[in-house]
Amino acid sequence: MNTKSLPGASFHQMWRELAPVGRDATTGGYRRYAWSGPDADCRAWFKDQALARGLSYETDRNGNQWAWLGDPAQGDAVVTGSHLDSVPDGGAFDGPLGVVSAFAALDELRRRGASPTRPLAVSNFGDEEGARFGVACVGSRLTAGRLTREQAHALRDADGILLPQAMEAAGQDPDAIGPDPERLARIGAFVELHVEQGRALDLSGDAVGLASAIWPHGRWRFDFAGEANHAGTTRLADRRDPMPTYAETVLAARREAELLGALATFGKVSVEPNGVNAIPSLVRGWLDSRAADQATLDTVVAAVERAARDRAARDGVDLTVVRESFTPVVEFEHALRDELNRLLGGRIPILGTGAGHDAGILSAAVPTAMLFVRNPTGVSHSPAESAAEDDCLAGVIALADVLEGLACR
Amino acid sequence: MNTKSLPGASFHQMWRELAPVGRDATTGGYRRYAWSGPDADCRAWFKDQALARGLSYETDRNGNQWAWLGDPAQGDAVVTGSHLDSVPDGGAFDGPLGVVSAFAALDELRRRGASPTRPLAVSNFGDEEGARFGVACVGSRLTAGRLTREQAHALRDADGILLPQAMEAAGQDPDAIGPDPERLARIGAFVELHVEQGRALDLSGDAVGLASAIWPHGRWRFDFAGEANHAGTTRLADRRDPMPTYAETVLAARREAELLGALATFGKVSVEPNGVNAIPSLVRGWLDSRAADQATLDTVVAAVERAARDRAARDGVDLTVVRESFTPVVEFEHALRDELNRLLGGRIPILGTGAGHDAGILSAAVPTAMLFVRNPTGVSHSPAESAAEDDCLAGVIALADVLEGLACR
Repeated sequence: MNTKSLPGASFHQMWRELAPVGRDATTGGYRRYAWSGPDADCRAWFKDQALARGLSYETDRNGNQWAWLGDPAQGDAVVTGSHLDSVPDGGAFDGPLGVVSAFAALDELRRRGASPTRPLAVSNFGDEEGARFGVACVGSRLTAGRLTREQAHALRDADGILLPQAMEAAGQDPDAIGPDPERLARIGAFVELHVEQGRALDLSGDAVGLASAIWPHGRWRFDFAGEANHAGTTRLADRRDPMPTYAETVLAARREAELLGALATFGKVSVEPNGVNAIPSLVRGWLDSRAADQATLDTVVAAVERAARDRAARDGVDLTVVRESFTPVVEFEHALRDELNRLLGGRIPILGTGAGHDAGILSAAVPTAMLFVRNPTGVSHSPAESAAEDDCLAGVIALADVLEGLACR
Repeated sequence: MNTKSLPGASFHQMWRELAPVGRDATTGGYRRYAWSGPDADCRAWFKDQALARGLSYETDRNGNQWAWLGDPAQGDAVVTGSHLDSVPDGGAFDGPLGVVSAFAALDELRRRGASPTRPLAVSNFGDEEGARFGVACVGSRLTAGRLTREQAHALRDADGILLPQAMEAAGQDPDAIGPDPERLARIGAFVELHVEQGRALDLSGDAVGLASAIWPHGRWRFDFAGEANHAGTTRLADRRDPMPTYAETVLAARREAELLGALATFGKVSVEPNGVNAIPSLVRGWLDSRAADQATLDTVVAAVERAARDRAARDGVDLTVVRESFTPVVEFEHALRDELNRLLGGRIPILGTGAGHDAGILSAAVPTAMLFVRNPTGVSHSPAESAAEDDCLAGVIALADVLEGLACR
């Protein structure tokens, strides 16, 4: 398979157009933050793709973009898409692969001469990564009523700019945002294609997989409070040093996750006063943990907290644990997943994922499925993220097969 | 003993005057940074104390303050003093206790009717803590030729202000700074009184102690380089996460220090990118380690580095260790220490310390000794630092006994 078999070689052309947008020359990573200049360039590109294909283009009240083949008012539409924004120094594929593949799949349907009997659309959901305003999936959350207008209006970026100010500067009316149940009611199925953010497909030797579920996941803040003191003069026995307590907790998280086949990570830490010759008064660490099911996740977090408390008692350290966020398991609809599996030949591997997606948000309102494309290194949220061309093209063909099967019969 | 037995109750009066200077209303800690407004207030206070006692006042080329009883040109002077600046949110005693006690000891000598046969001086060395420009003991280092003018002129604070700019703004000529061997040659003995920064005197039940030595100490930067990745999707087996490597190293430092009776502390850490759902690409930790002798210190640091390398190999993490600073052991002059011990009745406990002091810098050029006053909790570099009034007064009497014995016979 090569791109020349795709109509107009549009697949390569789309990647060439997106490649320079918001790319940092030093890191090679992408910085496409919601409602920024690079984001506007990505959105202009989306609109151009829609119009070039004769699709009807619209932006919804929450700034999500839609390109329609057929009349959305007909209902029971099949929608596919993803997002175009990025994390800081993100890779090229996380998000854009789903949007580019959606347009390429429509091109492939046209090449096959398939005639849709249901409305089809390509979508780009705004601010999926939450890199700028700290909340992920803002576009889909607003649409699904999972984020209120008041909450969204209070979001502020690191420069103090409010989300409504940023939307207004980008030409989007911030007062119009809110839930959009009529729009969701017109959608019969949403399919998001995404580069895998792990190595399951690489290990199974498959180019394309189907999502079973998004793992339950959460974020816990561990505050280890000790006593500031002079590192050069305070006897070990007189210390209330929270750093060893933190260290023991980091190792416990790794150990418990390994034992239970879960994920547990301390990636962020803040220390007060953070001086070389000062025993810290406070070490604050954030635990990100995820597991295939709620019971396992609960077990991991409880075990980490227990280890932390045991060590804290020995170190004379006070421990407070706060659950800052939590998302229960998202099981994608079994009927749609089984239908996709059948349309793709019945031998597609089915895998869970620890990452959140717009598809996870929408799944509460709309029958939703996800396709994953192999990531040979599993690296994600990094300029080193990659996907082989053949695998990306296999993803386009699989998505075209799904759209044809769902909407053209 | 109470302060009423001291001439003019000046001891209490001095503390009352200094108490509000540079004190943060929220933390209760002191923020008296070199060449800042609070520092200028402290320096004005010092000058007032000198003039009120009829002492001749001078500021030397490096901004250190001197209050002379007798003619310094006579030589073989006995000087006592400490510093008035503070670490961020420091306690009331670290530094000021030595200066206040020096003036109070002169008052006590007058009360006793003692007649000095050698010149006596009280000194306040500038920028001892290094809280603003990052180098400790700048005033004494410059005077002793342990910091060059070029090095001092390149020092910059967190706001980008250069040390010479700060000195000039405070009315001190920055071009005049440099070594001052003539001044040092006039000093026959320097005695610094300081609040203890540990609990040795509390444990031995003594109000006052004598310093044997300043432990050798140093600072090592451990750079743990891994690979940034998504904390929610990357399998544990595929990670190169430097946080567990750092954690294992923190615990090794504590363990090795305990085994060998040394001190080893990780008080400062920086993480990249430091995101809750991001496996770090880099964790950088600073080890502060001190021991009674060089061989023990070398053994501790080598053992910590070995543990770090073992774990780094298992975690797929690259480790670089850089020694950022190192100060060899400072042994205070035995003859002077024995003389002080004799003057104080021969039963004064003699203790080492892990903290640096102006006395340590000057000891290379001048016979130097240190007196410590009991710290009931050992807490230091913190608003919670404390010393009992009776112990502070015992320190004044001890210092007066020393000055009388050295300079009035």
